[in-house]
Amino acid sequence: MPQPKYLTGDSAAIDEFLNKFDVCVLWSGDSVYENIPETLMMLKAKGKKVVFVTNNSTKSRNDYQKKLTKMGIPCELDEVFCSSYSASIYISRIMDLPPNKRKVFAIGESGMKEELEAEGLVVIGGPADTYNRDPLPEDYQGMADKSILDPEVGVVLVGLDRKFNYLKISLAYHYIRNGATFLATNIDSTLPSHHTFFPGAGSCSVPLANMLGEPPLALGKPSQAMMDAIEGKFQLNRERTCMVGDRLNTDIKFGIDGKLGGTLMVLTGVNQKKDFEAENAVAVPAFYADKLSDLLGKSL
Amino acid sequence: MPQPKYLTGDSAAIDEFLNKFDVCVLWSGDSVYENIPETLMMLKAKGKKVVFVTNNSTKSRNDYQKKLTKMGIPCELDEVFCSSYSASIYISRIMDLPPNKRKVFAIGESGMKEELEAEGLVVIGGPADTYNRDPLPEDYQGMADKSILDPEVGVVLVGLDRKFNYLKISLAYHYIRNGATFLATNIDSTLPSHHTFFPGAGSCSVPLANMLGEPPLALGKPSQAMMDAIEGKFQLNRERTCMVGDRLNTDIKFGIDGKLGGTLMVLTGVNQKKDFEAENAVAVPAFYADKLSDLLGKSL
Repeated sequence: MPQPKYLTGDSAAIDEFLNKFDVCVLWSGDSVYENIPETLMMLKAKGKKVVFVTNNSTKSRNDYQKKLTKMGIPCELDEVFCSSYSASIYISRIMDLPPNKRKVFAIGESGMKEELEAEGLVVIGGPADTYNRDPLPEDYQGMADKSILDPEVGVVLVGLDRKFNYLKISLAYHYIRNGATFLATNIDSTLPSHHTFFPGAGSCSVPLANMLGEPPLALGKPSQAMMDAIEGKFQLNRERTCMVGDRLNTDIKFGIDGKLGGTLMVLTGVNQKKDFEAENAVAVPAFYADKLSDLLGKSL
Repeated sequence: MPQPKYLTGDSAAIDEFLNKFDVCVLWSGDSVYENIPETLMMLKAKGKKVVFVTNNSTKSRNDYQKKLTKMGIPCELDEVFCSSYSASIYISRIMDLPPNKRKVFAIGESGMKEELEAEGLVVIGGPADTYNRDPLPEDYQGMADKSILDPEVGVVLVGLDRKFNYLKISLAYHYIRNGATFLATNIDSTLPSHHTFFPGAGSCSVPLANMLGEPPLALGKPSQAMMDAIEGKFQLNRERTCMVGDRLNTDIKFGIDGKLGGTLMVLTGVNQKKDFEAENAVAVPAFYADKLSDLLGKSL
C-alpha cells in the first residue's frame, strides 16, 4: 500500500495534489474549517468545485449556508449538501412512491421538515408540537387498531430530534409495521458538542431498529447512498474528486469506499498520524496535512 | 434429545410431573394465568412453592401483587419477583458500592423507584418531573463541565420509562462516562399490549448501549443474574424447580440455561407445538400442556 503523502510545507506536493482534483468534498467538522476562508478562496480561484457536506439532519441547506457564512466562509446554497436533503431527494426522486403514499412520518427537527417540503412531500410529525407529549390511553388503542395512523404515510424518516419521546417511537414503529419504509438521515450514535458528546440521530432510530430487528436505510455518511446522491447532484467525476476530512473511520473510509480519486486527512481533529500508521488502521488517506490551510503553501 | 412429555389429559404423566418439582416459577404472560386460580391453589395444597416473576420494570412487587389479586390469583408479596426488585438487590447487596456512590440515576417509572428506595438507595431522576423537559443550553454546558452531575451517582439503572427523553439519555450517558455502572432492569425491545407491541425497556437503554459501544448488565430475563437473585432469595433447589412459560426463546430457554430441573411450556401464548418440534427450535421444553389448568387432571 502506498504511503500517504504529507503536504504541509511541500509546495511541489501541494501542486501535484491540486492538479489531481477538480472537486473537494469537505465534511463538516468544525476543525476542518479553522482559519480557512483564504484556502477555500484559493481553491475556487483555481477553478475547483467545493462541496460542503454534513450529516447534521437538524439543519436545512439554508441553515447550513448561514452557519458557514457566519464562520467567514461564503458559499452558495448549491454547494451545500446535508443528510436531510439527501434523504428528501431519495424519497421524492428515487423511491417512486404512489401518489397515495407520499406522506412522511418524520422524527426530526425543522431542517428536515424544510427539505422534505421543498421536495413536495407532506410531513406528519417532525418539529410540530402534535406529538410532543406523553401517550394517552386512546393513542395505544388507536395504534393497535390503526385508527390514528394516516394510511398515506409511505415512509418513516428518522433524524436527530431533541424532542423524541415514547409516543413518536411508538407511532414510527406502527407505521413501519403497517408497511412504511424505514429510513434514517444518518445513524451517528453521538453528536459532538461542547467538547464532549450528546445523543446523535442514531439514538433516535436505534430503538426502532432494535424493535424491528432491522436497521434503517441510512442516507447520510457512511452510507454510499449519500455519495450517489452527491454524485448525481453535482455530476462530478469521482476520479477527479477528493474527500477532505478529519476522521479515518468515517470521512476517509467513506472516500475510499466511494472510490474517489483521493482522500486528504487534516490533523486538526480527533485522529492523528499514528492512527493511520497503525498496523490495523481502519483507513489510510492518500494525502495528509497538519491543517487545511497548509494547502496555501505558505511557510510554517 | 428426549421428546417433550405431553401432560394434557394424562394423569399419570401429571403425577410424575408434580412429584418431580417443589417450586414452580411462573413467568408473567397474561396467557399463563388464564383460568388458573384453582390450579395454583392445587399446587400450593400439594406443598409446592409458587414464584411469580415478571420483567415488567414499571411495577413494584406491591403493584404486581395487586394486579395478580385483581386477576383472582391471591399471592403473598414474597412470592413476587420483578426486574426492578432484582436490579435493586443487585445494586444494594452485590455491588458493594462505597457510601459516597450509593445514588442511582434512574430512567424508569414509580415501581422502580419504590424498589430502589426499599433497598435504601437514593434515586435521582426516575418518575420525578425534574427531567421531564427539553434540555436547556445550560444543561449541555453543565454536563460537559460536570457541574450538574451528582458526584455520588454510582449506578445508572434503565428500565421502561414512557417519559424517556433526550435530556435523560444525555444525563445517563454522562454519568456512565463519569464512572457510573450501566445496568438495565431488562432489555426487552418490545412491550406486548393491546394485542400488539409498544417500545419496551430495551428501547430506553439501547441508545446508550449504542453511544457507549457496550450493552448494560441486564438484571431481568434472560439474564442469569435474575435467576441467581431468585435462587438467593427463595433458597430453591434448582433440580426441584420447574420453569413455566409460554415463550421458547425466553422463558423455556431461560429455564434450560439456568439448569432448572425442568421446563413446562403452555400452548396458550405465541409459540405452538410446531415451534419446538422444528429442527432448528431455539429450545425444547421437558413438558408441555395445552394450558396450565390441565395440571388439574380433569378430562378435556
